[in-house]
Amino acid sequence: MLEETLRNIGELDTAVMQRMQEHLDNLIKPPGSLGVLEAAAVKLAGIYGTLDLAITGKCVILMAGDHGVVEEGVSIAPREITYQILPAFLNGTSGVGVLARHAGARLVVVDAGVAVPVEFPGVRRMKVRPGTANLARGPAMSRAEAVRAVEAGIAVAGEEIDRGANLLATGDMGIGNTTPSAAILAVLGGYPAREAAGRGTLVNDEVLERKIGVIERAIAVNRPDPSDPLDVLAKVGGLEIAGLAGVILGAAQRRVPVVLDGFITTAAALIAARLAPRAVDFLFAGHLSGEQGHRLMLDLLDLSPLLNLGMRLGEGTGAALAMHLVEAAAKIATQMATFATAQLAELNEDMIAR
Amino acid sequence: MLEETLRNIGELDTAVMQRMQEHLDNLIKPPGSLGVLEAAAVKLAGIYGTLDLAITGKCVILMAGDHGVVEEGVSIAPREITYQILPAFLNGTSGVGVLARHAGARLVVVDAGVAVPVEFPGVRRMKVRPGTANLARGPAMSRAEAVRAVEAGIAVAGEEIDRGANLLATGDMGIGNTTPSAAILAVLGGYPAREAAGRGTLVNDEVLERKIGVIERAIAVNRPDPSDPLDVLAKVGGLEIAGLAGVILGAAQRRVPVVLDGFITTAAALIAARLAPRAVDFLFAGHLSGEQGHRLMLDLLDLSPLLNLGMRLGEGTGAALAMHLVEAAAKIATQMATFATAQLAELNEDMIAR
Repeated sequence: MLEETLRNIGELDTAVMQRMQEHLDNLIKPPGSLGVLEAAAVKLAGIYGTLDLAITGKCVILMAGDHGVVEEGVSIAPREITYQILPAFLNGTSGVGVLARHAGARLVVVDAGVAVPVEFPGVRRMKVRPGTANLARGPAMSRAEAVRAVEAGIAVAGEEIDRGANLLATGDMGIGNTTPSAAILAVLGGYPAREAAGRGTLVNDEVLERKIGVIERAIAVNRPDPSDPLDVLAKVGGLEIAGLAGVILGAAQRRVPVVLDGFITTAAALIAARLAPRAVDFLFAGHLSGEQGHRLMLDLLDLSPLLNLGMRLGEGTGAALAMHLVEAAAKIATQMATFATAQLAELNEDMIAR
Repeated sequence: MLEETLRNIGELDTAVMQRMQEHLDNLIKPPGSLGVLEAAAVKLAGIYGTLDLAITGKCVILMAGDHGVVEEGVSIAPREITYQILPAFLNGTSGVGVLARHAGARLVVVDAGVAVPVEFPGVRRMKVRPGTANLARGPAMSRAEAVRAVEAGIAVAGEEIDRGANLLATGDMGIGNTTPSAAILAVLGGYPAREAAGRGTLVNDEVLERKIGVIERAIAVNRPDPSDPLDVLAKVGGLEIAGLAGVILGAAQRRVPVVLDGFITTAAALIAARLAPRAVDFLFAGHLSGEQGHRLMLDLLDLSPLLNLGMRLGEGTGAALAMHLVEAAAKIATQMATFATAQLAELNEDMIAR
């Protein structure tokens, strides 16, 4: 299934993108004056293969998973919070609950590998295993488990698209998950652990040093192969990261754009991009996280963030907030008048800087 | 009336702001992890004087005016467009029409000084005079006219607040209006015309040089007094800029926050801030415009932009887009659960970096 998904990911429709650019240049505004919104409209046209952009269903897919590495003391929050916070996702009182509702988006909460049994009604179950093993001492999971988690993510994306979503956003919950995300960045980007790792949820210097040491050990112990993204994912990744990589691949296969959140969901995008480079064409970077390595990740993907608000909560909060901007781009492209229809005088072409 | 408005502008309620900060620190997220949204929630609490934030009515006030300086050849667009585009504002097919609707905001279109009679139904009339005089040859308007335009803007803000708006955004339309805006920046910020002036609507080098010369001449001919904001406004300003300064002052008087758009509406804010420094406390910078001097203006006001999308259309497009973020801040503050109510384990305080 994974192989088939990777094969099915197509290219952007450059002919439609060209026509969209021409259309935008005819709208009642100076060429290019809506900046990033115009670039987003062109990208959306290439993804959907039409000028007739319409965001008709929005969905934030939040994957939760636990991390064996928490036993190394890399997080200020106890592992239990991954489970304890699930009701707040379901009843809309979490950060992403509030912001998904504000965006008019459905929020789908997925158990991608919470350490304890999750019985809350409303949680989508795709648990491959109850939390990862401690990646500082051996592989976080087996390669087969990593593939199963990615495939489960592909299936979740497909289900939500079948339900009507045509714009997805990614979110994560998993105490300790900045550590595997930083490890993925270090391996795939070739960065030392010290550059890849950040303070996550505001850890102090002592915890940060410990975290850097843990990432160095994880790489030394596991020797993940940078040219084999599934090897990296299995050895130093996480279950929710694997599931989110699947969401990204599954959405790209269906030609549905995905808005990334911060450090963790972008780590998932790094894995997805190495499995299928074209998948990046279907991504929007929702925001620049306050987590230091996030900029490095976005640079690897050649994506520019839509927002930069110093947010570092995760959960999909930045992605949910940015959905409004992606939707704005679609509306600009379809609801504005042209110079011809509005009967405006033409601009003086001789005086325009190109 | 202007004097009374200036006297009535109060201070932020710092006691409520303190309580909001404590409340935000108790929400189910690491302290500060929602970044700028948290800062915005604190500011909103100080403006409204309550923790119970609720954006119940949004309105974009767009002021249109013409500029005698267009006869100097500082714009690529003919003056007629200021008038011709009004129907597109009224029928929702302009850039701000689309984005105000997307924000769920009412769009109020005001004739603050269009050069020709405006008979379109739905336009709010406050025309003080039909366009300004050419500021390169003398004052743009008289001091009495400037005061009348500011007062008319105060009245418009008051009307919209009486109709139920409690979050305003500012927009402008006026072919040629980056020239007076740059002149205001040059005079009030003490910048040479070359630093204050930008390409506006993409003018080429030749037009830009002409524009810089026009601003230098305007300042030399009129000798506006930087310590007298009404003198600056009258001599090198514009009618829509005056009206927008009034909107900002009128909203501050009523303790209603205003989201600024780009270069022109921020020029209006510079005038308002010199008339009543406390008015700045009621402002949000919606975005950073692509116009080069906008950053200088925001620095003078000590405001950080919420968005930075390379937009430079004006009309209130950036402000309308940013309203979603201000509203998000209010919702975060009022709809998220606390650690206590969500029964989450506490974070490990010893491990948190402060």
